[in-house]
Amino acid sequence: MSDSHHGPSRRQALIGSAVVGWGAAAALGIDRVATARETPTATGSRTVPFHGRHQTGVTVPPQAHAAHVALDLLPETDLTGIRRMMRLLSDDAARLTQGRPALGDTERELAHTPSALTITFGFGRELVTRAGGPVPDWLSPLPAFEIDRLTEAWSGGDLLLLVAADDPVAVAHAVRMLSKDARQFASVRWVQHGFRNARGSTAPGTTMRNLFGQVDGTVNPAPGTAEFDQLVWHSGGWLDGGTSVVIRRIAMDLDGWDRVARVDREGAVGRRLDNGAPITGTREHDDPDFDAVDERGFPVIAEYAHIRRARSPNVAERFLRRGYNYDDPPPAGQLSDSGLIFVAMQADPVRQFVPVQRRLDDLDLLNEWTTPVGSAVFAIPPGCADGGYIGETLLG
Amino acid sequence: MSDSHHGPSRRQALIGSAVVGWGAAAALGIDRVATARETPTATGSRTVPFHGRHQTGVTVPPQAHAAHVALDLLPETDLTGIRRMMRLLSDDAARLTQGRPALGDTERELAHTPSALTITFGFGRELVTRAGGPVPDWLSPLPAFEIDRLTEAWSGGDLLLLVAADDPVAVAHAVRMLSKDARQFASVRWVQHGFRNARGSTAPGTTMRNLFGQVDGTVNPAPGTAEFDQLVWHSGGWLDGGTSVVIRRIAMDLDGWDRVARVDREGAVGRRLDNGAPITGTREHDDPDFDAVDERGFPVIAEYAHIRRARSPNVAERFLRRGYNYDDPPPAGQLSDSGLIFVAMQADPVRQFVPVQRRLDDLDLLNEWTTPVGSAVFAIPPGCADGGYIGETLLG
Repeated sequence: MSDSHHGPSRRQALIGSAVVGWGAAAALGIDRVATARETPTATGSRTVPFHGRHQTGVTVPPQAHAAHVALDLLPETDLTGIRRMMRLLSDDAARLTQGRPALGDTERELAHTPSALTITFGFGRELVTRAGGPVPDWLSPLPAFEIDRLTEAWSGGDLLLLVAADDPVAVAHAVRMLSKDARQFASVRWVQHGFRNARGSTAPGTTMRNLFGQVDGTVNPAPGTAEFDQLVWHSGGWLDGGTSVVIRRIAMDLDGWDRVARVDREGAVGRRLDNGAPITGTREHDDPDFDAVDERGFPVIAEYAHIRRARSPNVAERFLRRGYNYDDPPPAGQLSDSGLIFVAMQADPVRQFVPVQRRLDDLDLLNEWTTPVGSAVFAIPPGCADGGYIGETLLG
Repeated sequence: MSDSHHGPSRRQALIGSAVVGWGAAAALGIDRVATARETPTATGSRTVPFHGRHQTGVTVPPQAHAAHVALDLLPETDLTGIRRMMRLLSDDAARLTQGRPALGDTERELAHTPSALTITFGFGRELVTRAGGPVPDWLSPLPAFEIDRLTEAWSGGDLLLLVAADDPVAVAHAVRMLSKDARQFASVRWVQHGFRNARGSTAPGTTMRNLFGQVDGTVNPAPGTAEFDQLVWHSGGWLDGGTSVVIRRIAMDLDGWDRVARVDREGAVGRRLDNGAPITGTREHDDPDFDAVDERGFPVIAEYAHIRRARSPNVAERFLRRGYNYDDPPPAGQLSDSGLIFVAMQADPVRQFVPVQRRLDDLDLLNEWTTPVGSAVFAIPPGCADGGYIGETLLG
């Protein structure tokens, strides 16, 4: 934070354009934006700014809890209705994220522990179409993959509410308030609740683990870097300063995974389970050595290993991952219903996410124990200034 | 904690009998038992002792997350099988609560952030019967109440796993490991996930709020007091040092509640929403003045007010509440599926809980917006020493 007091840092220079049009707090730099403000006496009161050039839920360190809520527009909701809805939603999101009750908040005491609450909105193809477009060509269901077993119940949607906080009560309250704002315009299509380690349970910056026990998300562009800006932010048109999100619900076969020996689990991914290091290295962030061979001349990181298949030689085919675990009550006769809410953000999912997913679809040993059961794509509009609303560059 | 270094305190004297048979750590006093040990560098590593005279999940300050898991014994599971199951479960619970992997833990890295994990076991009538009893006469479904709309899917069960921690990953991992231990003896009947404010989000000791925004649980006996010991712990027989738990899933009609004005909400409960004070007082823990009348001579706290109906003139009709909020994905066409996992612990539910519930059933304005949809009763056996297992006083 000391940078804030000594003029623009190199980090700020990298995001120079982002400072234009922001409020004073935002102008203090990305560290202020991407990190919650905290008072030592009440960590529940931590807030993340809502207004700014980008929606702040994209750049904030992932909170412990996230609700992913997709809504379908009612048949009669037209451009005027969408605009009214987004004004209402943006206004309440601005209040709730700052620890203030929503307008007409019926449980206003539940608003007082925002706990780094962020609320991020996404638009599906139908919403952008009804708004008169233009519709990005990638704003469609992803191409079909061999491994997919998608159900409608976990796919699609016209509007996304991505509500995240370090306190599950803050998430529940915000989802309720926003759902009420939207109810005259849209109905709930699906809700996916996800979690990571609680805040303070692991050291800041620790990569999450999924329910296979794997370190998940080691290679991730860092907000505030030129790489991040290039990979994540869309340029030009109404989405300038926005991005896209792919949300895939990936069921994980924990019973099947149980039958895999530890060494084979590490081989399937290409990383060690204990610290996430590539099996050719010793530390999590070591670069994998894809050329290393064992004493018999076979690659140490196999052809089918997840990290080999997921790594593109083309650096432009990378994206930001912000996934969450899910662990729902199991259906009758089962022991678990667990998996990953895979969340990828990128300027263009067809150019960045799809090629990677195609390689995984062709050959990735992890496919044995993972099944995509839901898939959705949304455009994430840019942020807005105080007095504005999310989506105004499309709807205004 | 300073008491620990200066011999038995008054508090310890109150629980004198509890010290017999415990390990050295437990003998240091209730403060050590009821509170997680914490190192400032890694709050995820906080542990609560597993061994002791009582199961520690009854007395520890409620953690942020709890999974309530009910299992049905398989038809072939007899006394020998139950004993084997409880040995396995107790052994893994002892490991997991101390931040160590379960025996043969397939995701052992997920065990390293116990975050005050406690695992509490409860026995349903069928389990105690198969074990040869004796079966406490209260260990049966509760009598039917007018307001009940119970479904089998949320009711009953032969074995309860109550898994609670401040980190949702710790809960998910422990539930998975315990479910695997039990799978050859029992199948999962229902799972109810609940939450409170995140640890650190509110000040320690803050009473939880339910999703109606109400302070919920103000009047609760405090572990380590004579009142608590008398109300909660069962005396004599295999349940000596144990207790009972009533788990009721209470659906809350948030849409209906929305239509109630704030003053009427406060009147329905008899408490202020902002700080939970009785409407005749100013602070949360003020005693309600049930005799106070307004300028027209009507009682300030109405006959139908929840706190009047829930308060017994008989102090023996009190119990410990350890409830959790739930907020599940809503069914089609609905905005929310939210409510309270009501959890009451007491030496005898028929003498303590049922009379209170009868008064609420007869007349409690809150019944307008709350519907019990599930109900289960379990006996909570006493704790065990290192090397022992939960249930040994019945099964041994």
